[in-house]
Amino acid sequence: MTITVAIDCMGGDHGPHVTVPAALDFVRAFPDVRVILVGLTDRLLPLLADRADPRVLVRHASEVVTMDESPALTLRTKKDSSMRVAINLVKDGEADACVSAGNTGALMAISRFVLKMLPGIDRPAICGILPTLKGHAHVLDLGANVDCSPEHLLQFGLMGASLVAAIEHVERPTVGILNIGEEEIKGNEVVKRAAELLWDSGLNFVGNVEGDGLYKGAADVIVCDGFVGNVALKSSEGLAQLLATFLRQEFRRNLFTKMAALVALPVLNHFKRRVDHRQYNGAALLGLRGVVVKSHGSADVLAFARALQRAADEVRSGVLARISERFAQLQPIQETA
Amino acid sequence: MTITVAIDCMGGDHGPHVTVPAALDFVRAFPDVRVILVGLTDRLLPLLADRADPRVLVRHASEVVTMDESPALTLRTKKDSSMRVAINLVKDGEADACVSAGNTGALMAISRFVLKMLPGIDRPAICGILPTLKGHAHVLDLGANVDCSPEHLLQFGLMGASLVAAIEHVERPTVGILNIGEEEIKGNEVVKRAAELLWDSGLNFVGNVEGDGLYKGAADVIVCDGFVGNVALKSSEGLAQLLATFLRQEFRRNLFTKMAALVALPVLNHFKRRVDHRQYNGAALLGLRGVVVKSHGSADVLAFARALQRAADEVRSGVLARISERFAQLQPIQETA
Repeated sequence: MTITVAIDCMGGDHGPHVTVPAALDFVRAFPDVRVILVGLTDRLLPLLADRADPRVLVRHASEVVTMDESPALTLRTKKDSSMRVAINLVKDGEADACVSAGNTGALMAISRFVLKMLPGIDRPAICGILPTLKGHAHVLDLGANVDCSPEHLLQFGLMGASLVAAIEHVERPTVGILNIGEEEIKGNEVVKRAAELLWDSGLNFVGNVEGDGLYKGAADVIVCDGFVGNVALKSSEGLAQLLATFLRQEFRRNLFTKMAALVALPVLNHFKRRVDHRQYNGAALLGLRGVVVKSHGSADVLAFARALQRAADEVRSGVLARISERFAQLQPIQETA
Repeated sequence: MTITVAIDCMGGDHGPHVTVPAALDFVRAFPDVRVILVGLTDRLLPLLADRADPRVLVRHASEVVTMDESPALTLRTKKDSSMRVAINLVKDGEADACVSAGNTGALMAISRFVLKMLPGIDRPAICGILPTLKGHAHVLDLGANVDCSPEHLLQFGLMGASLVAAIEHVERPTVGILNIGEEEIKGNEVVKRAAELLWDSGLNFVGNVEGDGLYKGAADVIVCDGFVGNVALKSSEGLAQLLATFLRQEFRRNLFTKMAALVALPVLNHFKRRVDHRQYNGAALLGLRGVVVKSHGSADVLAFARALQRAADEVRSGVLARISERFAQLQPIQETA
C-alpha cells in the first residue's frame, strides 16, 4: 500500500523553501509514500526543477493562508488556499493525510468543516510529543480548546490512548491528567470531574500528573485543556532556550572556557541531538475523519520531514480506525446509561 | 531598625535540620535582622547548643503541621502549631515577617484567617521569581487560586507591580498577562476580560505574554491564575531536571566524555550556579496584612536562607505599605464608577 500525503506547501514561516525539500527527503527515505505538493505552482515548480519523481505530484492552489489571519474569515473566503485544497484531497480520498505548518486556528477550523468529526467526538485536539526520562509522552490538548468540559477531557484521554496503542503497539497505555499538587486546592472542578470520568472509562488511568511529571514519564498520555497545555509547552520551550543561551555564554566567557568548549563539543553535540525539539515536530489533530498533522510554523527541513513521517505513521498504523472503534464501543454504554 | 523574622522551623521536608542552620547563617550575614525560631524546643535547642546569639530567639510550639494534611482541618484544630504560632507573632507585632517551608494550603489558610487581607484585595496570591534572559520576572499566582475572576487577575497585577516597585526600585514595572498565541483562540474569556481591566488600570501593562515569554523577560510582572502558573512553573522544573539528567548521562558515557567533563567542569559549575533554582527560593504571599514568605518544601540550607532574605527585603522596602497605598488610590475611583 502506498501512503499519499497532501502537503500545504505555502504554510509556515518559510513556505516552499522548507516544505518542498522536506517532501523530497521524505519520499527518498520511505519507498511506500508519495506526496502531493499543494500551492502556487510558480513557487513550487522551480524548487523541483530537475527532480522528476513519479511519487512527487503537484496540485495548484491560487491562495495562501497567512499566519495571523482570522480562521473564521479564512474558512469563509479562501476556498482555493493551499491549506484547504490539501485538506480537500484527504476528504476526496486522493490523499491519506494532510500536513501543514500554517495558521493553527485556520487548520483546525477548515479541517473540522471539511472533514467533520468522528462519531462521539465533540472537538478536535492537538496531540504533541514531549521527551521524558523514560522515553516520550503524548500530551493533548496543546491549544485547540481553551475551555474544556470534563467530557472533552475524557474524550482526549480516549483519543490519546488510541493513538499510542496504534502507533506504539502498547495495548493499554497509561493515561494521566495534568493537575496541581496542593491537597486542598487540587485542581479546579472541571479537572476533578474529568478525573472521575477517566477512572470509570476503562482506560489505564493513573490519576493526577503535576507539571514536572510531564517530563518524568508519569504517563504515556497526559490530558489537559488547551490553555494549560499550550502554556506548559511554551514555557518549557522558553526555559530550554534560556538554558541553551546561558550555557553558550558560559562556554564563550574567556580563552579557557572556549578551549573547554572545544573539548566538550562532541559531548555537547550529542546532548543537543538528543534533546533536539525538531525530532518531536508534528502534532496530530485528533478526532477528525482524516489524518491531519500540524507542524511548528518555524520548522526547518529536518523538522518538517519529521511531521510528514508522523502523518505517514498515523496512516500506516490505522489510528483513525482505532479511535473510531474505541468510541463505537462507548456509544452503547452511554446510551443505556 | 531591626527586622524580626518568625520562622516556622518544623515545616518542609527536612524541618529543623535545614531551617535552624539557615536561620543562623541568615543572622550572621545580616546585622539588621533577628529571628524567632518557632517549633518543638526539644528539637530546636540541640541544634543551637553552643550558639548563644542575642539575635536568635526561640519560641515553643507544641504541634506540627504535616505536608499533606487538610488546611481546613489544620486551621480548626492545630492552634499551637509552629506555623500558626509564627504567623501569630506577625499579627501581634512581635515579628515583621513569617517564613515557612510547610504545607502551602495550610500556610495560605492560616495566614488569611489570622492576618486578614489588605483592604480592596479578595485573595492572597503566591508570587515567585523566575530567571529570564534579561534578569528575572515575578510571576503570580503560582498555585493559591485555581479559579480566578478577571478582577482577581487585575489585583494580582497591582500587587505584583507594587512588590517590584518597592523591592527593585523600578517605578513603573512592566506587567503582562500569561496567554496563548493563536489569534482565534487567544485566551479564554477570563483572560480577555482581565487584559481589558489591566489596560485601564494605570499599570505599565504590555498585554499578552506567551509561555516562552516568561523566560524571555517579556515583562517584570506576569499574572496568571494559580492553576496555569503552577503548571508552567512545575513543567519548567521538570524539563530542567530532564536536561540536567541527559547532560550528566552524556558526560558519563565513556572515558573520553568523562575526560571532557573534567575539562568542562569549571564552566559547567559556573553555569549550574547561574541557573541554581535555590537562589530563586522564597515566594511572597501577597495581599495579606503581614509579610509571609513560602519556601519550597524541599529547600536546603542555602535555599531556605534565601527565602529568609526575601522576607527581610520585603519588610525593608515597605512592600505592604506600597500595596496598601496602591489599593487605597483605587478605592475612590471604583466607588464613583
